[in-house]
Amino acid sequence: MMNYARWTTLAEVEGLSIKHLDYLHDSHSNSIGALLLHIAAVEVSYQVATFGTSSSNVSEIEHYDAALRLGARARREIKGDDADYYLRTLEKVRSKTLEEFAKRDDRWLDKETLFWDRQPANNYFKWFHVFEDEINHRGQIRWLRKRALESC
Amino acid sequence: MMNYARWTTLAEVEGLSIKHLDYLHDSHSNSIGALLLHIAAVEVSYQVATFGTSSSNVSEIEHYDAALRLGARARREIKGDDADYYLRTLEKVRSKTLEEFAKRDDRWLDKETLFWDRQPANNYFKWFHVFEDEINHRGQIRWLRKRALESC
Repeated sequence: MMNYARWTTLAEVEGLSIKHLDYLHDSHSNSIGALLLHIAAVEVSYQVATFGTSSSNVSEIEHYDAALRLGARARREIKGDDADYYLRTLEKVRSKTLEEFAKRDDRWLDKETLFWDRQPANNYFKWFHVFEDEINHRGQIRWLRKRALESC
Repeated sequence: MMNYARWTTLAEVEGLSIKHLDYLHDSHSNSIGALLLHIAAVEVSYQVATFGTSSSNVSEIEHYDAALRLGARARREIKGDDADYYLRTLEKVRSKTLEEFAKRDDRWLDKETLFWDRQPANNYFKWFHVFEDEINHRGQIRWLRKRALESC
């Protein structure tokens, strides 16, 4: 499911120039580039939350905080990069996730901790949420891509 | 995962008037109402595809074809209904899905047929795609909801 979600995300990046990736539909919009970096940043934050990897991984992603939060700061900081930059970042983060998954067995997926609102959630749910958030933003990227291609 | 996806979709409908549900952001946009009916229509089409239920179920959804295809015809046909109408439609379709799931065991999930591009896909993938498509459109609904609430 993670692979399929990613495959559909990457399909939406095909053929986009820096102008398209930086396209802001209105003053509240996130660019496609910022949404792609958000997808990578969310994945890193769940690596830290579920693998217990050092939060110094976080610094591997440029503009991590801005990408995670989106909005005004992301509009200011995330721009001028080409598709290749976003694809490389997504790929680097995903490699790390797969490397950590490979060290664990299926029972790890059932392991629960207190999570949102201090309710129990297992690792399966947490990683479901990672790709669920990706698909949500891919829906927005699809919408924005059509307008960006028309406008620039 | 289906329940969680639906819960997040329903959260985006809260407090929307007919005007918000019919809001068209531009000449290519789908309304939130049309996207909600699309979610229900996709679910019905996968009931037919995976349960072998009669395609006459399809007629239980008004504007089924328009909802499935979205675009110009959906903009013309799907309007003037309140949130309750969309919620009732989603609920009615989901009840049928759960009723049919209850008749089947987990081995049914692994059952493969030739599907997209005549490639094999099992029922687990097909129903993953149903909620994956829902989440994609929920991302768009979230985006449109903010603009609709600002504009009307």
